[in-house]
Amino acid sequence: MSRLDQQLAFLTEADRLKSVLRATTLCDGSRMENSAEHSWHIALYALVLAEHSETDLDTGRILKMLLLHDLVEIDAGDAPVFGDHDAEALAARESAAADRIFGLLPEDQARAFRALWDEFEANETPEAQFAKSIDRMQPPMQNLASGGGSWIDYNVTLDMFETRIGPKINNGAPRIWAWLQPRVAAFFAARD
Amino acid sequence: MSRLDQQLAFLTEADRLKSVLRATTLCDGSRMENSAEHSWHIALYALVLAEHSETDLDTGRILKMLLLHDLVEIDAGDAPVFGDHDAEALAARESAAADRIFGLLPEDQARAFRALWDEFEANETPEAQFAKSIDRMQPPMQNLASGGGSWIDYNVTLDMFETRIGPKINNGAPRIWAWLQPRVAAFFAARD
Ligand SMILES: [Ca+2]
Repeated sequence: MSRLDQQLAFLTEADRLKSVLRATTLCDGSRMENSAEHSWHIALYALVLAEHSETDLDTGRILKMLLLHDLVEIDAGDAPVFGDHDAEALAARESAAADRIFGLLPEDQARAFRALWDEFEANETPEAQFAKSIDRMQPPMQNLASGGGSWIDYNVTLDMFETRIGPKINNGAPRIWAWLQPRVAAFFAARD
Repeated sequence: MSRLDQQLAFLTEADRLKSVLRATTLCDGSRMENSAEHSWHIALYALVLAEHSETDLDTGRILKMLLLHDLVEIDAGDAPVFGDHDAEALAARESAAADRIFGLLPEDQARAFRALWDEFEANETPEAQFAKSIDRMQPPMQNLASGGGSWIDYNVTLDMFETRIGPKINNGAPRIWAWLQPRVAAFFAARD
């Protein structure tokens, strides 16, 4: 197989991410969102919002991480953030998925993509932290727009949201969390 | 409105691109592709295939162009490449859409995004030429995978494909066109 043969086999396999459904709906509530369109949306979020980071970021690397970060779901599925799952078993499934899916690429590229995915998962560099926070920030935006979305389906309370999601957004994007938190609080207050 | 208010209004409006359907199906033929997941897929194509360009490219700028390039379809719709449409009227609709949609952003960002969209449309810089060729290259890949897709729906012949699409792929990505052309030719030969 030539490099192009391997690369196009990878890109055709990647198409399957369009069929992985998430727990969130589109903003108009018309259907569940899939992980491919979600990946596009958060890359756009990062492009628009990078200026609000506390540090100077390499936007190109953030975009690459966000474009790649969900490909493992082709094998491992999407794990809804308010669902129950065995974190260790999920991490093992995702790591095996990364081996298989990035392994379709030529070896040098497989290594580079795996390094970007590992960087995202490790959540240590400023770019990974910002990317992870953006990934956590888009679903609440969808829920606010659609009138509750996955918060209703999973019986989420403001306290659960602030405990489980708040710190993850605040970690890499505190200014964006400061904008979002009162809006989410107002949504839950209006439901009481 | 604060900058974040404007930026999040833009990002919520962008969600509507997930409901714009294209003429192409997913690789498995299960449903039509939408323009948001298409935008993600071609950004991934560009990331994987940029090494095959004739010149050294600014991959970051290509990714930005590809993430933005279809947003005008929220207002102007997707114009299938083998469909009939009035090119001048479509260009006017898309330009008005760019004014409205990028105009939701803070002024400096609206200008920067509009400049990226104009660069893509003008098809003059090496980055725009590569991005445009990649955008033309992904639908035939989907059609090859799904057994014909939009080629069947629009009664496309190899000659039509080579006349209307070939030069557009060859312009910015001749090595990729050299890989694709014999595969498309074999598909049409097998149908005869
Ligand atoms: Ca396109």
